[in-house]
Amino acid sequence: MSKALPKRSENYSEWYNEIVKRADLAENSAVRGCMVIKPYGYAIWEKMQKALDDMFKATGHQNAYFPLFVPKSFLEKEEEHAEGFAKECAVVTHYRLKADPNGGLMVDPNAKLEEELIIRPTSEAVIWNTYRNWIQSWRDLPLLINQWCNIVRWEMRTRLFLRTAEFLWQEGHTAHATEQEAIEETERMLGVYATFAEEWIALPVLKGLKSPNERFAGAIETYCIEAMMQDGKALQSGTSHFLGQNFAKAFDVKFVNKENEQEYAWATSWGVSTRLMGALIMAHSDDQGLVLPPKLAPIQVVIIPIYRNPEDLATVSAAVDPIVAELKAQGISVKYDDSDNQRSGWKFAEYELKGVPVRLALGMRDLEAGTIEVARRDTLSKESRPIEGITDHIKSLLDEIQANIFQKALAFREENTHSVDSWEDFKVQIEKGGFLLAHWDGTAETEEAIKQETKATIRCIPLDAPEENGKCVFSGALSNRRVVFARAY
Amino acid sequence: MSKALPKRSENYSEWYNEIVKRADLAENSAVRGCMVIKPYGYAIWEKMQKALDDMFKATGHQNAYFPLFVPKSFLEKEEEHAEGFAKECAVVTHYRLKADPNGGLMVDPNAKLEEELIIRPTSEAVIWNTYRNWIQSWRDLPLLINQWCNIVRWEMRTRLFLRTAEFLWQEGHTAHATEQEAIEETERMLGVYATFAEEWIALPVLKGLKSPNERFAGAIETYCIEAMMQDGKALQSGTSHFLGQNFAKAFDVKFVNKENEQEYAWATSWGVSTRLMGALIMAHSDDQGLVLPPKLAPIQVVIIPIYRNPEDLATVSAAVDPIVAELKAQGISVKYDDSDNQRSGWKFAEYELKGVPVRLALGMRDLEAGTIEVARRDTLSKESRPIEGITDHIKSLLDEIQANIFQKALAFREENTHSVDSWEDFKVQIEKGGFLLAHWDGTAETEEAIKQETKATIRCIPLDAPEENGKCVFSGALSNRRVVFARAY
Repeated sequence: MSKALPKRSENYSEWYNEIVKRADLAENSAVRGCMVIKPYGYAIWEKMQKALDDMFKATGHQNAYFPLFVPKSFLEKEEEHAEGFAKECAVVTHYRLKADPNGGLMVDPNAKLEEELIIRPTSEAVIWNTYRNWIQSWRDLPLLINQWCNIVRWEMRTRLFLRTAEFLWQEGHTAHATEQEAIEETERMLGVYATFAEEWIALPVLKGLKSPNERFAGAIETYCIEAMMQDGKALQSGTSHFLGQNFAKAFDVKFVNKENEQEYAWATSWGVSTRLMGALIMAHSDDQGLVLPPKLAPIQVVIIPIYRNPEDLATVSAAVDPIVAELKAQGISVKYDDSDNQRSGWKFAEYELKGVPVRLALGMRDLEAGTIEVARRDTLSKESRPIEGITDHIKSLLDEIQANIFQKALAFREENTHSVDSWEDFKVQIEKGGFLLAHWDGTAETEEAIKQETKATIRCIPLDAPEENGKCVFSGALSNRRVVFARAY
Repeated sequence: MSKALPKRSENYSEWYNEIVKRADLAENSAVRGCMVIKPYGYAIWEKMQKALDDMFKATGHQNAYFPLFVPKSFLEKEEEHAEGFAKECAVVTHYRLKADPNGGLMVDPNAKLEEELIIRPTSEAVIWNTYRNWIQSWRDLPLLINQWCNIVRWEMRTRLFLRTAEFLWQEGHTAHATEQEAIEETERMLGVYATFAEEWIALPVLKGLKSPNERFAGAIETYCIEAMMQDGKALQSGTSHFLGQNFAKAFDVKFVNKENEQEYAWATSWGVSTRLMGALIMAHSDDQGLVLPPKLAPIQVVIIPIYRNPEDLATVSAAVDPIVAELKAQGISVKYDDSDNQRSGWKFAEYELKGVPVRLALGMRDLEAGTIEVARRDTLSKESRPIEGITDHIKSLLDEIQANIFQKALAFREENTHSVDSWEDFKVQIEKGGFLLAHWDGTAETEEAIKQETKATIRCIPLDAPEENGKCVFSGALSNRRVVFARAY
């Protein structure tokens, strides 16, 4: 048996890294800051993609594909956008290598591009340059498009899934005839993200607005979903931006409205990425390893035979076959692990590490009694159940586990969310982690000062925050609602 | 109504470009050689991806994701591979832009990478560098992995779908304990491609081996599927490579075999790309536009109401609703186009242009008679059918269209495939297009000479070519089987 994981309570960061590695989710590649997503990790991402893609299509969106490269001059067109993304990008300057007289290959100096190409850090510029030709009249609107692709941002400090130089994501880019429609779309997609996070990842999220400081470069308003990890830190899990007419103006995208007047189109963009894998891992896992919500588990049920000799194995396998068939018929993903190169104890630990929601174990004594051992990954509890009716039991058990994981994460967030009303209290509480609900005077100066002193940032101004008169926890100036502060990934 | 397409027989190349554009499949982007795949084109690609992905998984493969960047030193490691791909690649040399004192942005000279990164032209180098850590023992083999991603090859002459600087593809990369197993895998995946081409794209293909000249850079043997387009030219539609131990040696990937000896792993790689979209379009379309095989059509059936006033439309729609529901229940993708901004004649032409396999039209007179008009895109024929039982009829009609499109393409290929036995005949026939079955002496010199004189290349040495003694059509030297020559895309 491999050595135990580091404990969450002792070294959270190491614990995360080891789960990512030992559950075969991803690893660092030889290319600085870029990851390899391994088959087991990618299978979870594929399930996320499928669920999200279905939700995008159900809300009227179509997929398309736009170029990887953004000409430098495109990036320059929207000023804030350029400023936000120019600092961390991969720049293509040449289009050929040649034999190096000293051996190996070298960049061919004769193959220099006239204009440098940036690997997309996001695609607003390329897409809005394309939309100029697609949008002429109000009849062409709304234009509801999504793209699944890779993205590169040259981050200096990287962390598997949470922050990598290359990552995978989807980016929705929509164009609308009116401001109101665009705002509705921005909010609709935030709702889709929140539903996905809560119903699929079992991850409770706050829906809110970013402060101006934390807005997407080029946005009028950035909406976000924020989740709490088990160390009490916040993880921004998805964003939806109302871009106003900024990109339409930068790329001259006008349409003839119903009143027969030329008008700039209204834009939104919204994205979630492989960062959600980090959220999934950090929100639910424990000292035994990964804990997967059943809806995203590549293997929902693993069955392990307990036997001493090949004859026993044959007998057990004969009893397992119809169980496997029944589970599959119910659409449940099941793996029967009758491999003989490891003991059952090793297998138990291995599937716990990989977060398989339900483990069934069956031996000769169970068979005689007509029972099977059912173990839950979320609670680590087990019980003996009659084989008869086991499929129905598992079906409802998977639902129960999905709900339980969500409730557990929700309870954790609630326990670790505190209203604070004084600066002293703020400084004490922030060291304990979690979300702080505090009044803020609305200024960037106060936001920055709080960040400098405590490393806490405004995670969001919750959409459902009630109006409440109060005083800024830092400056004492008047405020009319609490915002959420936390340290964040 | 928009103006007619150019005719296939008059300007094949323009005809292709116009279909791609007017059927909303793709367009050139502002970035040289890169395309935008539009929603309708992307929906077809998604159907291709889904079918292929299911076939890969059914043959035991798992998906994963590897970095976009290949360090220059990796590309250097396999010599032939380096030579094959260094000439046409996008090179990242810097990781930051900064404000240009003259306005706009400029490359920050202080942010030069120590080692240049190449945008992957294919991923053997990155993946085999990773496999070194994944493969220790024969128990780790076979390793059966596939990746869906984007690829960049800096082609000088580009053509939408057929040859673009950036394209989308899948690349399988497998590692095996024995040469035999790797060869079997190479052939198995060629078989998967052939099945996909024939059963989904309705595209008959020849399975064969490439001549050494045309092999993938770094392969021991390249297998391919070759299809004939309607202008008689060949299109390589997929390749599967047996890589021997070349990459294992270049990246030092060794494993302990069952005899407890260290051995280099055996490799395969195989890929198909968005080029298949080009094959699909060129193989079946006609002067009215795209012709889609039903299995890949985003819309399989379109229903168009014929009416003079809103009351008639309401009556027709009430009759259409249950038909739509029934078709959907059968898993058929159907669109009811009751939009009122175009006449039905315009709609007929539009859906013909977009290749929708079946068109139904229903008006007041049909309703009185209890009939509906059924038009086939492949034959452009139409007939009046009873509404009663229309779902069953359409179900079998879609199968019939799928089979008919394939048969038509097969008959075309057979009509345009000729055995030639003299150089004179070769030169005459090659001008007429199509595939020439001819003896070849097996030398690269002859192959090159034929190419220089006629622009024909050896498309493949068919796997099922019978042994037959003959003389090389060019040199007169002895040969024991015919190979396939053609001009190619």
